[in-house]
Amino acid sequence: MRVITVKQPGGAEQLQLSERPKPELKSGELLIKVKAAAINRTDIINRQTSSGYLDFDVLGIEVAGIVESAGNDTGIKPGTKVMGLVNGGGYAEYAVMPADRAMIIPDNLSFEEAAAIPEVFLTAYQTLFWLGELKDKETVLIHAGGSGVGTAAIQLARQLADAHILTTAGSSQKLDFCKSLGADTTINYKEQDFDKEVLAATDQYGAAVILDFIGASYYRKNLNSIQTDGRWILIGLLGGAHLENINLMELMSKRVQWKATLLTPRSDHYKAELTADFAGRALPLFEQNKLKPIIDKVFPMEEVQDAHRRMESNQNIGKIILKMDESD
Amino acid sequence: MRVITVKQPGGAEQLQLSERPKPELKSGELLIKVKAAAINRTDIINRQTSSGYLDFDVLGIEVAGIVESAGNDTGIKPGTKVMGLVNGGGYAEYAVMPADRAMIIPDNLSFEEAAAIPEVFLTAYQTLFWLGELKDKETVLIHAGGSGVGTAAIQLARQLADAHILTTAGSSQKLDFCKSLGADTTINYKEQDFDKEVLAATDQYGAAVILDFIGASYYRKNLNSIQTDGRWILIGLLGGAHLENINLMELMSKRVQWKATLLTPRSDHYKAELTADFAGRALPLFEQNKLKPIIDKVFPMEEVQDAHRRMESNQNIGKIILKMDESD
Repeated sequence: MRVITVKQPGGAEQLQLSERPKPELKSGELLIKVKAAAINRTDIINRQTSSGYLDFDVLGIEVAGIVESAGNDTGIKPGTKVMGLVNGGGYAEYAVMPADRAMIIPDNLSFEEAAAIPEVFLTAYQTLFWLGELKDKETVLIHAGGSGVGTAAIQLARQLADAHILTTAGSSQKLDFCKSLGADTTINYKEQDFDKEVLAATDQYGAAVILDFIGASYYRKNLNSIQTDGRWILIGLLGGAHLENINLMELMSKRVQWKATLLTPRSDHYKAELTADFAGRALPLFEQNKLKPIIDKVFPMEEVQDAHRRMESNQNIGKIILKMDESD
Repeated sequence: MRVITVKQPGGAEQLQLSERPKPELKSGELLIKVKAAAINRTDIINRQTSSGYLDFDVLGIEVAGIVESAGNDTGIKPGTKVMGLVNGGGYAEYAVMPADRAMIIPDNLSFEEAAAIPEVFLTAYQTLFWLGELKDKETVLIHAGGSGVGTAAIQLARQLADAHILTTAGSSQKLDFCKSLGADTTINYKEQDFDKEVLAATDQYGAAVILDFIGASYYRKNLNSIQTDGRWILIGLLGGAHLENINLMELMSKRVQWKATLLTPRSDHYKAELTADFAGRALPLFEQNKLKPIIDKVFPMEEVQDAHRRMESNQNIGKIILKMDESD
C-alpha cells in the first residue's frame, strides 16, 4: 500500500510517498481502508525530530474510512464507516485502529469531514470537561480560537455548557469565524492586551477555565485572566517552555489549578474511555448539525508537503485534511 | 467574655487576654461555649501581619464546645457537643459557627481531642480526595508527616484508600510516629534525598499524589518524585515562594496537575459541603478508634504565647490545643 514516510528528520520536503505492506490485524483491532486522514502538530514534531511515539514509521494519528476487516471480538462489521484515533500510521491507504476507539460516522458527514473530528474534538472535550471541569454558564478563555482545537472547543463550550466564551486569535478573519461558531467575546492578541479584555468582559472576575496552547509567553497575562479556583489547562507550548520566575504565592492566593496535558501519548484505555464519553454526548449533535467539523483545506495524499507547510505557517482555520488516493 | 487578641502585629509576646462582648447570633448560626480551640499556622500569620480574613479581632479558626443557643433554622439543640471551623474568633470563651459546619463530637472523644480534628482533617481530606483524587492503592507522598495535616493525611490515606504512603519528616521520632499511624515508607529529608527514596520505593514509578507544604525549595525533587498524570497539591510555602527557571516541557511531559489551595479563605458554602462529605465518611471511623486526633500538647488559655512559640519552633507532633478557662 502507499503511505507517507519521513526520509530523515527535517522540513516538509522530507515527506515522501512510499510503499509498505498492509498492517496486520491484531485482536481487538479494525483494519480500515483509509479515505481521509488529518494533519496534526504532533505529526510535524514527529517529522522534525523522529522522537515520537509511533509504532509505524508512518505519520498520522487520526483517520476516517471503511472497515475492511475486523476481529471477531470487536462487534463491528466490515463495511462500517468509522472515524477515530490511531496509534500512528494514519497517512496510509490502510490503517489499524483499536476497535474501542472507533466512532460510527454520522450519515450527514463526508469522510473528509469525519477525519476532521477525532483529534481536535476529543482534545477540546478532554480539556474543557475532563480537566477543565467546565460547568454550565461558566466563563472560558480559549486561545488560538481559529485553530483546530480552538474551533472545536468554541462549539463544544457553546453546545454542551452554554458557557461565556472568550477567544483570542491574530486576525479579524479568524475572530469573525470564531464568533460565527459561538464565541461571545473575541480578542485580537496582536492589537489588544488579552488579560485586560478578559477582565473587562467579566466584571474583573476572570475566566474559570483557560485553554492555553501558548505557555511561557502568555504566563503573566493568563495568571491575570484566571478566576480564583480557575482551571488553567496547558496543552501546548507555541510561546515557549522557559519561564524565568514564578511567584508561587500568586498561584496560591488564586488557588489556581494548573494542569498540563497531551492526548496522543496517553494510554489506549484512556483514549477508549474518552472516545466513549465524547461519542455519547457529542455525536448526536453532529447529526443535528449543531456541531460541525471545520475544514480548512483538503489536499490529495501526494501534496502532503504543502499540507504540512500550510499548518506550519498558521494560515489555517480549522483542519487540514489529506485525501487518500482513490486508485485502488 | 475573655478572648485572646493581638496587641499589634508581631511576635508571640503580642498575644494577650482581653475582654470582648459575646458575639451575636445570626440566622443559621450557633453560639458555642468554647471548651477547646486549636492553634493553626494561619493564626501565626495573622498575628504577624494582621492582614488576615477575620471578621473579629480575635484569632482562631476551629473550636470544640457546647451549643449555648441556636437559631430556629439550624435543627441543632442547645446542649449539643459540636466541633468545627469558625470564621475567626475561636480563641474565646464563646464563638459563633455556621450551623452547616458543625460536626457532632463522637462520644469517645474529649473536647481537646475534638478541637484537634476540624482544620487538619478537613484540609487533609480536601487535598487527598477532592483535589488529589487519590484512588484505592495509589501511592501518595505526604511531606511534613509529623505536622497536624500530615498526621491526619497519613491516617486518612490508610483508612479510606489503603494507599501506599510515603512520608518525609526531619527526625526519627517523627518518622517512627508516622509509621505507627500507617506510613509505609518514611524518609528523613535532612539525611536523604527524598526524590531518590520515593523512586526507589516505587520501582521508579513515583507518587500519584503529593501533598506539598514546602513550595519552592522542594520543586525539583517533587517534580522528580511525581508520576505521569500525578496530582501535586500545593498547600503551603514553608520553603519559599520564588521559583526560577521553570521548564514547562517537564510539566507537560509528565502531564502534571499542579493545584494550589488554601482552606481558610474559601466560601461558607464550600466549607459546609466539605464538612458534610468528610463527616459522612470519617466520623464513624473516629467512633471506631480507627482514626484519632493527634494532640501534641494542651495549653491553658493564659499560656497562648507558649502555644504559639511551640508551633513556630516546629517542635510539635500533631495539634497544639488551647483549653478555655473553666471558671465561668
